[in-house]
Amino acid sequence: MPRVYVVGAGPGDPELVTVRALRLIESADVLVYDRLIPMELLKRAKPNAELIYVGKEPGRHVMEQGEINNLLLRKALEGKLVVRLHGGDPFVFGRGFEECSFLISNGVECEVVPGVTSAIAAPEQFLIPILLRGVSSSLAIVTGREDPGKGFREVDFRRLATSVGTIIILMGASEACRIALELIQGGLSEATPVAIVTRAYMENSRVLFTALGELAKCQVTVENPSVIIVGRSVSLSPLYNTRNPVRH
Amino acid sequence: MPRVYVVGAGPGDPELVTVRALRLIESADVLVYDRLIPMELLKRAKPNAELIYVGKEPGRHVMEQGEINNLLLRKALEGKLVVRLHGGDPFVFGRGFEECSFLISNGVECEVVPGVTSAIAAPEQFLIPILLRGVSSSLAIVTGREDPGKGFREVDFRRLATSVGTIIILMGASEACRIALELIQGGLSEATPVAIVTRAYMENSRVLFTALGELAKCQVTVENPSVIIVGRSVSLSPLYNTRNPVRH
Repeated sequence: MPRVYVVGAGPGDPELVTVRALRLIESADVLVYDRLIPMELLKRAKPNAELIYVGKEPGRHVMEQGEINNLLLRKALEGKLVVRLHGGDPFVFGRGFEECSFLISNGVECEVVPGVTSAIAAPEQFLIPILLRGVSSSLAIVTGREDPGKGFREVDFRRLATSVGTIIILMGASEACRIALELIQGGLSEATPVAIVTRAYMENSRVLFTALGELAKCQVTVENPSVIIVGRSVSLSPLYNTRNPVRH
Repeated sequence: MPRVYVVGAGPGDPELVTVRALRLIESADVLVYDRLIPMELLKRAKPNAELIYVGKEPGRHVMEQGEINNLLLRKALEGKLVVRLHGGDPFVFGRGFEECSFLISNGVECEVVPGVTSAIAAPEQFLIPILLRGVSSSLAIVTGREDPGKGFREVDFRRLATSVGTIIILMGASEACRIALELIQGGLSEATPVAIVTRAYMENSRVLFTALGELAKCQVTVENPSVIIVGRSVSLSPLYNTRNPVRH
């Protein structure tokens, strides 16, 4: 039975891919890949492998999701070993599930190979605890993106504000200051520590520490791709206050 | 400067370790490892590497955390390449942060190598979506464990119930039915789909699908280690209703 592998490529460092993902990349006939994967991984493909870029950039899609689904199906039915490579983890704001679902309903097997998600890896690069006894026993991973169809954000940040110890926001760059405001309106103190990790595990990765009240003033520039971490435990990082001190 | 590597070993399958983690395992002089790591990985250590088990089992610790910290420090100061191997990811309910913090305050560098966490990988093994457009835009990862000192749970499940789309509970086996009850009291419907993934990516891994109301009746046995996934998107798994159908 034909099978497609829907594979996470990790947060950006080519060494943070799993052993299984690397083996599949090395044996793939067809590699269908995203924008935010470590491009060095493509060098590990077989010389005659077909490499197909289907990345989505803010506001511009090389290929619509329906076309990607059909591409995966067609190549699998041709008997090819198809690897669909997602940045991070394929089920954390990727479309891995939709792809698998479509393939299975068309008689093609789908195996998911999980990857390290930047949601969790980005804070680790800068030694920022996200769960810590006595400080934070729960975390939320959410999207900061607005629903393009509906014109509003998909997550109720006011409600989320005090429900978990740590809030990790992906794709929140352009909405960061409005999200910060909503978290304050939801009950978080303006002094709540925030870390903004940009380009985690890629070249020129960096962290900026600030406070929720500062972020809410819309004077902190957040670049893409960034992971925003909000919560008390952030200030326990050994790098807090030694790097990029908060400006007042 | 001496340095310790605090490394995630992934959810259980030895192939789901990262390439970087595997390289560090292969070059370590001292490997300090947990209970839930894939034991096959230890075979990749150098023949003369020192392997030290410091696993914690419910109710029984081979070594207290303070002793583990001191062990890591001592070995690093001896000039050894020390790798501290955690199951899953070292910052997701591991003590990786405390270890790094202790080492840094004692003049030893600490590098975290993120791993695939079972919180996200376990649902993927059984094609269970955790984030899905139009269904769930946020997830929480929480512990079901009671605080041993305080005798109550660290997470307010009533408050969490309707704050995120998907709730993923680790270490919740013994408390599962009380947690389910609290989630219902917090506003979730008894019909909310639940998946219980046991021994993800290990031998004899399995999934049980049920509903929150069923789980709250304390008639579903949840074994250790399990990941419990609660939320509407669970029922969209292609395996839902085809495997372990809900008993009424």
